Amino acid sequence: MNLPTAEDIIEAYARIMPHVHQTAVLCSSAINEIVGAELYFKCENFQKVGAFKYRGATNAVLSLSDEQKMRGVATHSSGNHAAALALAAQMNGVKAHIVMPDNAPGIKKKAVMGYGAEITFCAPTLEAREKTLEEVILNTGATLVHPYNQKEVICGQGTASLELMQTCDRLDAVMTPVGGGGLLSGTATYLKAKHPKVEVIAGEPLNANDAYLSFKSKSFQPVVNPDTIADGLRTSLGSITFEIIKNKVDDILTVSEATIIEAMRLIWERMKIIIEPSSAVPLAAILENKERFKGRKVGVILTGGNVDLDHLPFK
Amino acid sequence: MNLPTAEDIIEAYARIMPHVHQTAVLCSSAINEIVGAELYFKCENFQKVGAFKYRGATNAVLSLSDEQKMRGVATHSSGNHAAALALAAQMNGVKAHIVMPDNAPGIKKKAVMGYGAEITFCAPTLEAREKTLEEVILNTGATLVHPYNQKEVICGQGTASLELMQTCDRLDAVMTPVGGGGLLSGTATYLKAKHPKVEVIAGEPLNANDAYLSFKSKSFQPVVNPDTIADGLRTSLGSITFEIIKNKVDDILTVSEATIIEAMRLIWERMKIIIEPSSAVPLAAILENKERFKGRKVGVILTGGNVDLDHLPFK
Repeated sequence: MNLPTAEDIIEAYARIMPHVHQTAVLCSSAINEIVGAELYFKCENFQKVGAFKYRGATNAVLSLSDEQKMRGVATHSSGNHAAALALAAQMNGVKAHIVMPDNAPGIKKKAVMGYGAEITFCAPTLEAREKTLEEVILNTGATLVHPYNQKEVICGQGTASLELMQTCDRLDAVMTPVGGGGLLSGTATYLKAKHPKVEVIAGEPLNANDAYLSFKSKSFQPVVNPDTIADGLRTSLGSITFEIIKNKVDDILTVSEATIIEAMRLIWERMKIIIEPSSAVPLAAILENKERFKGRKVGVILTGGNVDLDHLPFK
Repeated sequence: MNLPTAEDIIEAYARIMPHVHQTAVLCSSAINEIVGAELYFKCENFQKVGAFKYRGATNAVLSLSDEQKMRGVATHSSGNHAAALALAAQMNGVKAHIVMPDNAPGIKKKAVMGYGAEITFCAPTLEAREKTLEEVILNTGATLVHPYNQKEVICGQGTASLELMQTCDRLDAVMTPVGGGGLLSGTATYLKAKHPKVEVIAGEPLNANDAYLSFKSKSFQPVVNPDTIADGLRTSLGSITFEIIKNKVDDILTVSEATIIEAMRLIWERMKIIIEPSSAVPLAAILENKERFKGRKVGVILTGGNVDLDHLPFK
């Protein structure tokens, strides 16, 4: 298996840097007091399209040959990767074909259309997505840009941690959520090579704990139709991301739906920034494991800020 | 009348600078495209207590004599000034007595209590507030820190524009909302002396348009119990703020409730930051007057981010 290296991530960063936002790192003394640790939030909710996914998508598009660019790109995604690939393609004059589950949040469908992509809707199962995508690729000759299980995408996502370490070089741990594992495997690949003392820990919804089960048993265990508010984390690991996570990640902590909402609310109220439920999962893990993080300096990647304001989990 | 000067504001800034956040100035290419202008948002929603009011309150507390500090401070406020004065007092070991209308948002009551202030509730009318405050001051000997009609407070609020101009020195206009007029009069005092070419324009809810009517007629016209979602802007101008606004402000634009909610939603969705309804009023004024702002560089002070997440105006 051709796994990405930290050097690949550094190269990806040179490639995408002019095209992505160098996002802010914010702190909250109020939240630090509540958790008893020093948290550094990397605000990828401020990234283009409102999510870190723009890093991986941009790296994938910029890595295409001229001939591939002419035939376009295609993907299936529950939302942020779709918007990210659509915009990254549009920015480079490339056609994007997006397969989306028909239950994706309205705000995400709207964003993808706004970036000029062609959408094909399908049933909200991994099987339906993959089958529909196969047909689209067969018909168009477009290049697949997978939402997570692809080297260029993983390398792009890994650049968030590279940037975080430029701002905060004395972290004890870095935390991300885990869904398909693109961000987590990119983060682990970069940090374990360049900052081996930094623990890499993921948070995952208990209701979508495939990564936790796969990681603990060291054998791939997908979940089917998981029920979690963290809509970005409903996918299972891929073959490449599982291989990296199995070997390089220090731990995966599962959290309840109630704590995800509590953590999301805490960040909205105390930091005055908007994050989507998936982004709240690492802070939820800290809230449920305060002793473990006590007094430590922890980087937390806030993965995105795309929420449907008409359907919020508060009240 | 002893009106503040730009030099007073510069002195106030030297006094409070170590105690306040130098807040970020954010831009949104998506919003710029929608309005056809270049907007620079000064994020006082990231200020301590989540509002610019911390600047004025801090300047007032730091301006007290040692004897005054021993007797404490007192005020009436619909919310953000109360929290601001409570924290500014606590930070300096001063007792704060706060008179609040009993219909103030729960999140604001909670914040004030959290900062160790003593709260006295009263009916939600200006008369009841002033009478209750008078009694509190009589009983305690505390010094009044008015939410807007006081020189130290106006000077503190004026430092937001001073900071904004340090970041963006080529603005054509600066906009604030107007309620009691503390921020607007501080802004106008500073800018008209130091950057006379910069227009100073306020946005005000049409449903609470006392400042608009007073400004246009050049005679003070208070409103009684105005009905607007912008809860920070329900107060009328004071004698000092009216005097300054009458002479130094270029224009006041009134906006509908629907546009306030539209502008608030735009900032939440596109910028991924949380602002309260009052903060959305200047952008609402730009949305309702696009021709007037076309192609111009406009600073917009986002005044606060304290909203009750259980009672949002979306959906």
